[in-house]
Amino acid sequence: MADGAHAAQHSLANGRTRIDFQTEPARYRHWKLTTDGDVATLTMDVDEKGALFEGYDLKLNSYDLGVDIELADAVERLRFEHPQVRVVVLRSAKPRVFSAGANIRMLAGASHAHKVNFCKFTNETRNGIEDLSENSGLKSICAINGTAAGGGYELALATDHIMLIDDGAAAVSLPELPLLAVLPGTGGLTRVADKRKVRRDRADVFCTTEEGVKGKRAAEWRLVDDVVAGSKFEDAIAARAREFAAQSRRGAVAAGIALTPLARSFAPDSVEYGALSVEFRRPERIATITLRGPSAPPPASADAMVKLGAEFWPLQLARELDDAILHIRLNELDVAVIVFKSSGDPGTVLAYDRFLDDNKDHWLAREIRLLWKRVLKRVDLTSRSLVALIEPGSCFAGTLAELPFASDRSYMLAAASPGAAMGRGGDNKPPAAIALADVNFGAYPMSTGITRLACRFLANPGDLDAAKAERGKMLDAETAQRLGLVTFALDDIDWDDEVRVFLEERSSFSPDGLTGLEANLRFAGPETMESKIFARLTAWQNWIFQRPNAIGEQGALRRYGTGQKPVFDTKRV
Amino acid sequence: MADGAHAAQHSLANGRTRIDFQTEPARYRHWKLTTDGDVATLTMDVDEKGALFEGYDLKLNSYDLGVDIELADAVERLRFEHPQVRVVVLRSAKPRVFSAGANIRMLAGASHAHKVNFCKFTNETRNGIEDLSENSGLKSICAINGTAAGGGYELALATDHIMLIDDGAAAVSLPELPLLAVLPGTGGLTRVADKRKVRRDRADVFCTTEEGVKGKRAAEWRLVDDVVAGSKFEDAIAARAREFAAQSRRGAVAAGIALTPLARSFAPDSVEYGALSVEFRRPERIATITLRGPSAPPPASADAMVKLGAEFWPLQLARELDDAILHIRLNELDVAVIVFKSSGDPGTVLAYDRFLDDNKDHWLAREIRLLWKRVLKRVDLTSRSLVALIEPGSCFAGTLAELPFASDRSYMLAAASPGAAMGRGGDNKPPAAIALADVNFGAYPMSTGITRLACRFLANPGDLDAAKAERGKMLDAETAQRLGLVTFALDDIDWDDEVRVFLEERSSFSPDGLTGLEANLRFAGPETMESKIFARLTAWQNWIFQRPNAIGEQGALRRYGTGQKPVFDTKRV
Repeated sequence: MADGAHAAQHSLANGRTRIDFQTEPARYRHWKLTTDGDVATLTMDVDEKGALFEGYDLKLNSYDLGVDIELADAVERLRFEHPQVRVVVLRSAKPRVFSAGANIRMLAGASHAHKVNFCKFTNETRNGIEDLSENSGLKSICAINGTAAGGGYELALATDHIMLIDDGAAAVSLPELPLLAVLPGTGGLTRVADKRKVRRDRADVFCTTEEGVKGKRAAEWRLVDDVVAGSKFEDAIAARAREFAAQSRRGAVAAGIALTPLARSFAPDSVEYGALSVEFRRPERIATITLRGPSAPPPASADAMVKLGAEFWPLQLARELDDAILHIRLNELDVAVIVFKSSGDPGTVLAYDRFLDDNKDHWLAREIRLLWKRVLKRVDLTSRSLVALIEPGSCFAGTLAELPFASDRSYMLAAASPGAAMGRGGDNKPPAAIALADVNFGAYPMSTGITRLACRFLANPGDLDAAKAERGKMLDAETAQRLGLVTFALDDIDWDDEVRVFLEERSSFSPDGLTGLEANLRFAGPETMESKIFARLTAWQNWIFQRPNAIGEQGALRRYGTGQKPVFDTKRV
Repeated sequence: MADGAHAAQHSLANGRTRIDFQTEPARYRHWKLTTDGDVATLTMDVDEKGALFEGYDLKLNSYDLGVDIELADAVERLRFEHPQVRVVVLRSAKPRVFSAGANIRMLAGASHAHKVNFCKFTNETRNGIEDLSENSGLKSICAINGTAAGGGYELALATDHIMLIDDGAAAVSLPELPLLAVLPGTGGLTRVADKRKVRRDRADVFCTTEEGVKGKRAAEWRLVDDVVAGSKFEDAIAARAREFAAQSRRGAVAAGIALTPLARSFAPDSVEYGALSVEFRRPERIATITLRGPSAPPPASADAMVKLGAEFWPLQLARELDDAILHIRLNELDVAVIVFKSSGDPGTVLAYDRFLDDNKDHWLAREIRLLWKRVLKRVDLTSRSLVALIEPGSCFAGTLAELPFASDRSYMLAAASPGAAMGRGGDNKPPAAIALADVNFGAYPMSTGITRLACRFLANPGDLDAAKAERGKMLDAETAQRLGLVTFALDDIDWDDEVRVFLEERSSFSPDGLTGLEANLRFAGPETMESKIFARLTAWQNWIFQRPNAIGEQGALRRYGTGQKPVFDTKRV
């Protein structure tokens, strides 16, 4: 059942031509972010008529990607614009409904690729909420005032503390299987099992009971933390918020920085950002992302960094890279390969990494490093082939060196023979170099919990130590290859052909096969709850999203709400 | 694309009506098992005309499930019939070909369910080879005399040591992606990444290079252990075999026991074994497996156990349960739920467990425990809903208690009020009891490396200790429920209705949704290389096995060998 086979597949609403991941609180249609001292409230009040695609309404606080883009934005603003906030309460403005979860008609009419990418983004957002608590000390509470079904409960699962009103009706549920023949795929199964540690047979009962679990049993089964009578609900939320705020180790910072709108310009075959360009070579199905190093040395002080705010190069570039990756994921489905290039002075990039190291206890420096961690994880989880081309004049150093390490392969141009013109083609760029820094050895773990270099050198931790010893040095292609940091060091004669053949070959392979291959080879080593969500859970969900029992004409997703029961192929696989 | 949509789907060859997992060396068509002192040789010499299904020949040592059933049988015989063997050499009888891997025409013509179950069984067999080395001290060497492609190389990956002939042509390869648009799904990707720890970019190059890697580079990239010139190949194999045999800690045992043919009789709606029955209620899509406890106390000594051989109750039952599960998996695709029941004296079951504990250093006792471990893992990995009904007269004690713990749910009948007739319906069976033993706390880890009880009590290890304290006691329904050992303790009034509703409901759900749900909820906690094979790798492979780029009319699997190139949907998902 190929994508596009469904006549019913939705078009973007309101004449949109692409999905935009940029928004800001003033433009929110579905969420309200308010703060009161160290307590923030994030209120879900989905605008029924504000769907991203045509063909469905967002009833009962159900959501689509558009709703989740606002949520993701709000979480980023809590980090950067509200550093004084120590606890955030997620709640609903709808009476007796927290959230009905992902919109079913949206799912039924979405292409397979959109469903998969929608789930991936929502998962990343929920992981980001957990990271907010774990690494930024900003605790989260979910106050469930009524129905929290499917994705609604999965959102609650991402918070630290779940409060359920006890009114005889309010319930948490994961009705995906009985209702729709799909999985609670936004982390639900994994978080029930691995975070809430619900006993597996109870989890089985819970996930096969359409109406869910309410009251005391919800707490007894570990599905929620507090069950509170309606008359005491508001007081209990306030008390918990004060308690969590008091426990938070988030420092007292008066003011944040403004996440100003990204400066972007879209052209037919490119997107231009301040510190990054994306170029599309559509016939070859290639997107080239060129990251530009800083144009000035790091600021003199943390205060100067704060003053620069969103203009501070590491923050600017992280936000731009994040936006570019998401744009390619959701809007440029035909891109087979993302090529990472860079230009700039690697020494200055290292200077910025040292600046962030030196200010690692400063809230903004910490948040910027955490943002880079999440953006790099997003790169790891992007189902496109990734290749880094390390050429003269590039600056894959420190933080930026993570991109070759995140890539499926890297090609590095060896310097011409001594005495020849520097660099490639006789121009005057400095020869290709790569440089390591402290930041490559801990600050940016993958979703598996280990760094890209630790994953790369699983066979021999000694290789990791050898790489570590070279921190701060400009490593030429031969050295980088000897240290195992790049896949191929090529001379000028072979470069064009080798790179061209690789890119042509990659585009000729089955896109699906590559998705599966890369999802396996990129994540050697341990698994964590987070990586299980993207592996065990997501891969099974994607399989189910292809099965006629879910998406066929008689399948449960298509038949939902029609009054007709789904018809299942009864063979177990 | 529903199963059955392919006109080309194969039928079993030679008038077979079911796939039979029972065989013996005298009946092998594809393998030869020979022993010479402590060295065994397992020679692959696939009979081209011996395919399990019609419609393809098994050229170049390619294999189908029938070939792998013989391999699995041979591995069991090494354990039980040849306890003196300390090393096994896997090799090919075909000149310049080790194995071309899973037969492509078989895959192209197989139903989705068969492909999935084929891969699952072959994975279990390869995990069994690794278990042989790790837990029985029987080391394995793979001697590759030519092409080892796809599943051929994946078989090699399951051994301890891979030797590749260096003749300028012999190569190892995983050409699945470039050739067929599918994954090396028999553990290949996981073992390359996590066992061989091949650097991820090299693994990417390897898995996208159809012709594979040969000679020195194969060793340098950790794909093989030895690369040996053709003239020295035989001597090198013999030397390695001697070396590995000398290192093995497998004891010197003169004689094994005979794995005599299972006594089975197939009727239309049942299969009868010596210690186990399977009954099919086809309209309700239920298979009930009733395990019978021992009819006599354990033998007086280890020698007496050896004398009993395959008649020794724990060994007999394990083999029968294994066969029954595999029969249901491959031949009874319409079964939605497997119900586990038991009958017998729980005290005698515990006595057998104590007997095996007391003889844990005896080779046969150890092998029987290891067999149970593998059979129970097979149960965990069976994609049918599993439920245990713990009724009066049952004997879910010790080893057999693992079945309720492996089940998605368990129902236990509470004893009638004191003074009433014992047990259900006034018959004279003793009231339902469950009993724990040492064996439930370590001997039978799941594929995730933790025991079923540890997984069950992840939330609170104290619950595990509380259960441990009750070892040896007959626990009634109330106690079992209090301890968290069963899902529901029901009285006689509710029993029939509750069980019926559960079974009806389960059969009404989407089979695919249940497969995904259970694969997530059964495996809370850590992942291991083994569990990654069944989660990350298998789930992605199953997704790809549904995608038109692989299995569509223009897909790579269907077009292979036709001279026509596949046509791919280029959208990345």
